Amino acid sequence: MTRQHIPIRSSLLASAALALILGVSTGIAQEAAPAAPADQAAPADPANIEDHTSQPQDQYEPSLTVLAEEQLPAPGAPEGVEALTQAEFDEANKIYFERCAGCHGVLRKGATGKALTPDITRELGFDYLQSFITYGSPAGMPNWGTSGDLSPEQVDMMAKYIMLDPAAPPEWGMDKMQESWKVVVAPEDRPTEKLNDWDLDNLFSVTLRDAGQIALIDGATYEIKKVIDTGYAVHISRLSASGRYLFVIGRDAKVDMIDLWMEDPSVVATIKIGAEARSVETSKMEGWEDKYAIAGAYWPPQYVIMDGATLEPLKIVSTRGMIYDEQTYHPEPRVAAILASHYRPEFIVNVKETGKIQLVDYTDLENLKITEIEAERFLHDGGLDSTRRYFITAANARGKLVVIDTKEGTLEAVTETGGETPHPGRGANFVHPAFGPVWATSHLGDDSVALIGTDPEGHADQAWKIVDSFPALGGGSLFVKTYPGSNHLYIDATLNPEAEISGSVAVFDIDKMTSDTETDPEFTTLPITEWAEITDGQPRVVQGEFNKDGTEVWFSVWNAKDKESAIVVVDDQTLELKHVIKDPRLITPTGKFNVKNTMGDIY
Amino acid sequence: MTRQHIPIRSSLLASAALALILGVSTGIAQEAAPAAPADQAAPADPANIEDHTSQPQDQYEPSLTVLAEEQLPAPGAPEGVEALTQAEFDEANKIYFERCAGCHGVLRKGATGKALTPDITRELGFDYLQSFITYGSPAGMPNWGTSGDLSPEQVDMMAKYIMLDPAAPPEWGMDKMQESWKVVVAPEDRPTEKLNDWDLDNLFSVTLRDAGQIALIDGATYEIKKVIDTGYAVHISRLSASGRYLFVIGRDAKVDMIDLWMEDPSVVATIKIGAEARSVETSKMEGWEDKYAIAGAYWPPQYVIMDGATLEPLKIVSTRGMIYDEQTYHPEPRVAAILASHYRPEFIVNVKETGKIQLVDYTDLENLKITEIEAERFLHDGGLDSTRRYFITAANARGKLVVIDTKEGTLEAVTETGGETPHPGRGANFVHPAFGPVWATSHLGDDSVALIGTDPEGHADQAWKIVDSFPALGGGSLFVKTYPGSNHLYIDATLNPEAEISGSVAVFDIDKMTSDTETDPEFTTLPITEWAEITDGQPRVVQGEFNKDGTEVWFSVWNAKDKESAIVVVDDQTLELKHVIKDPRLITPTGKFNVKNTMGDIY
Repeated sequence: MTRQHIPIRSSLLASAALALILGVSTGIAQEAAPAAPADQAAPADPANIEDHTSQPQDQYEPSLTVLAEEQLPAPGAPEGVEALTQAEFDEANKIYFERCAGCHGVLRKGATGKALTPDITRELGFDYLQSFITYGSPAGMPNWGTSGDLSPEQVDMMAKYIMLDPAAPPEWGMDKMQESWKVVVAPEDRPTEKLNDWDLDNLFSVTLRDAGQIALIDGATYEIKKVIDTGYAVHISRLSASGRYLFVIGRDAKVDMIDLWMEDPSVVATIKIGAEARSVETSKMEGWEDKYAIAGAYWPPQYVIMDGATLEPLKIVSTRGMIYDEQTYHPEPRVAAILASHYRPEFIVNVKETGKIQLVDYTDLENLKITEIEAERFLHDGGLDSTRRYFITAANARGKLVVIDTKEGTLEAVTETGGETPHPGRGANFVHPAFGPVWATSHLGDDSVALIGTDPEGHADQAWKIVDSFPALGGGSLFVKTYPGSNHLYIDATLNPEAEISGSVAVFDIDKMTSDTETDPEFTTLPITEWAEITDGQPRVVQGEFNKDGTEVWFSVWNAKDKESAIVVVDDQTLELKHVIKDPRLITPTGKFNVKNTMGDIY
Repeated sequence: MTRQHIPIRSSLLASAALALILGVSTGIAQEAAPAAPADQAAPADPANIEDHTSQPQDQYEPSLTVLAEEQLPAPGAPEGVEALTQAEFDEANKIYFERCAGCHGVLRKGATGKALTPDITRELGFDYLQSFITYGSPAGMPNWGTSGDLSPEQVDMMAKYIMLDPAAPPEWGMDKMQESWKVVVAPEDRPTEKLNDWDLDNLFSVTLRDAGQIALIDGATYEIKKVIDTGYAVHISRLSASGRYLFVIGRDAKVDMIDLWMEDPSVVATIKIGAEARSVETSKMEGWEDKYAIAGAYWPPQYVIMDGATLEPLKIVSTRGMIYDEQTYHPEPRVAAILASHYRPEFIVNVKETGKIQLVDYTDLENLKITEIEAERFLHDGGLDSTRRYFITAANARGKLVVIDTKEGTLEAVTETGGETPHPGRGANFVHPAFGPVWATSHLGDDSVALIGTDPEGHADQAWKIVDSFPALGGGSLFVKTYPGSNHLYIDATLNPEAEISGSVAVFDIDKMTSDTETDPEFTTLPITEWAEITDGQPRVVQGEFNKDGTEVWFSVWNAKDKESAIVVVDDQTLELKHVIKDPRLITPTGKFNVKNTMGDIY
């Protein structure tokens, strides 16, 4: 294992600092506001990302725990702090979990938003808090008062509430999961062969974020085959190894499983695995295809392994534990990305705040074997290299990439990207003319694209090192994209505060990349929003996804809930506009997942 | 794996019920009272056991968590409950953790004592609680008021305190461990060979419970070679694989490491690993001898792997997680027995409340591999079979034995003992004339001794089944004992309320045991207290331990702190009194650990 450190490019940082702040203010702030006013021009934050601007406290303060019963009693107020009545406390609690917890954390330890523990809030005092909640801040705090979302009385109540000791939402164990679990169509009542004429390989599952739905869109005809109700703001879609079952997970931790073989593909099973969640995955090891699903929660901090045919919850694992480096207890280590290994019967689970990557052997759930790798804090998203052997994942608030050898089950490297807050999504694999196989990530905190060498055999010198880093359109990027055989690397800038930038995509020619790392490669700018011909609102372009043949790349043009959105299809060969998908049902489209590519981890 | 169920012998239960209640009242009640009045005739509870009478709530209620800062603020009082001032709350908190938490649990979820969560205490009301705290109960609650331990004002305060939401003590992470860790003599300053003329193999480490010390006693001359200050109420002594280092752990979670090679064996390193603890062990796998130590805590619920030469804390693992069967979150799964495997480089860790046995692979601490076996709730103590391949451990409140194959790393069996609350200590291995190799446990809740077959190859039919069960002196037994080659099986009855019984030991002739399970084998009663010639107080006899040759068995005659105690040495061949060790320094002797036997897991 190597831990490589390269200096952060200060020029990039400087140019991106403002972009980041503004990007946050328009994007992230609404994380906590699912019911944000529809008449605001800026759309809500992307469906597939959050916490990208975390400025977490390095020093987690271990806390004392005061237990209460299910019916949470209003904590008493210490001197100088006004108490709430039980009714007020209950209402404030509800508002907090709906509006504030997404950014400030369910335990108020801070994440995207600042920490709001009583030591801090009591210091700030009632008047400051009241004003802050009313008017918001340019750094991303929404103006809950002046926007009309909260009444003056509610603002006062919330100011008092956050000066009291924080309350945590209830646990969500097997009892609650069982209650929420529903098999809509039992396995024996499902088809034994595919009954529809859909080209499943070329089907796209598209998140309709604010509608709490997904759209299934045919990759050849661009037809919306079906819109299906799901959890709120579906974070990702995943496929079973066979490609038959589509799994989606909402931020509300609702998992829906759709049988694509049915004449009319529909939800066949559903479950709620917690209060807040991000990740779902299926077992992909040979011999274990379609056997298990797994979903990871933000709250409670845990994941659950489920039956792959019914979503029956089988095994819940809590992630509470020690932070990897300082070894102090963290009560809320959230589960970020989960990937299925192709080399071992294991799930690879990113535990965010404690900085540990768990290799969860699913061959014996009653005697569960977990290897817990000390990696780096604030693990977020990531993907496999082109051989699917190595898992490359961002420790985003630490500006690093962590590489896991999924074949050996070991930590391979921890490398600084040189950029600020890498956000790879699943990354992008291609063969660089000079450096051989690389994997790319863009950044939220600056405009840089970093390439990491992924070929320890053929290019040992460059393996797991940043071989080049160069600027794209601007800060606030969420996703990079290419395809095996494509000559193009696409970089979005979704959270960039400038409409022209957030509405465009940068494209690099791979064959023009060189070993000269001093000279930045040029890129073409695709005016995606312009192509979509949407003039009302300020839509943001997010997440390129290829069709099954790798000939087209699709981008979401994501507008406010009550405004027109679109999906723009680009010809990968010519970089010309090929098609615009528009439909009244296409409300706030964000993530798109092609069945074949998602099933095969092709990216 | 087999799960065997045999009916509980109701006759035993009936006869033991009263004994158990009374045994608890004199023994367990003082668990929480390290500073119990010395003029009470009954000695405190045994050093090596607690929670034996747990009546745990089957249904653990998941709780909401309210966080507070390190300086714990007094929780506000809901309607009908009187609040405490901050000063009162702090004092009550201190009293609770010193006097009450040992029985009622740090989170007040109940253990040896009843649950004291606010839903229960508010129902009972102030007057009831005040009276209960003042006068105690025959079921084991001490009379804190009338004993003078608490003033009437303090009793009132405690009654109010337990109606408020419970507070938990602080976490104890690496920061705190590092602060408490002290290397008194660095490894390079220690001898390279044994510098004293002690016969280490025949040395006994004896817990002097209320003195917070251990005595090192020579097995041949009965001379107290040295008394060493340790943590409070040392729970166990363990040896490094080489036998050079002696590790002791107090209930206050202080670990002391003594170098027996020094001219004057002394503490060479010390650390405090939590607020409350029970277990310490060392790595024993070939190639890993003396490399690591491990200690398990009751609070915080965690264990720590330490350097075997310095006690440097290396890796802390939290045990918080899901209860094995119902899969709901438990905030306080305490670490009970820990054993070192002789077949794999693993520690075997009993996690009590969640009923899981962790096999902790210590070959790579940075990528820690843990296999977590779903076993049974309320795992307590246990030991290895004669081949040292199988770990047999009691799930005491469930009346069961759990068997782990430490070579394969799998659950072998879960078997009901037929008795109430098995308490094996490390158990006793011998060859039964009819049933072959067996392992014995006695019970806290009744007078029965249960034998489990341990020879899956030679006696497959009996393997992991209770082959016989027969009565000994009475309920309240803590330890059974025999030795390879000995014809005797010794059973104490330490917690029995009758002085004559708790002051005696039952001895069975192994060669007279038969396949006739209808006829109970006869036993001889050894009047140990009488032999000790102690008339002042009501000492209890506890824990037989053999000398290095297996020719003598030693029993502690454990009196109150200010009264004379003794160790009685019995000739194993003749069952006659051989020697009585008395010394003013021998204050409240309880557990005794012969170096050779402890090092080699001979029992």
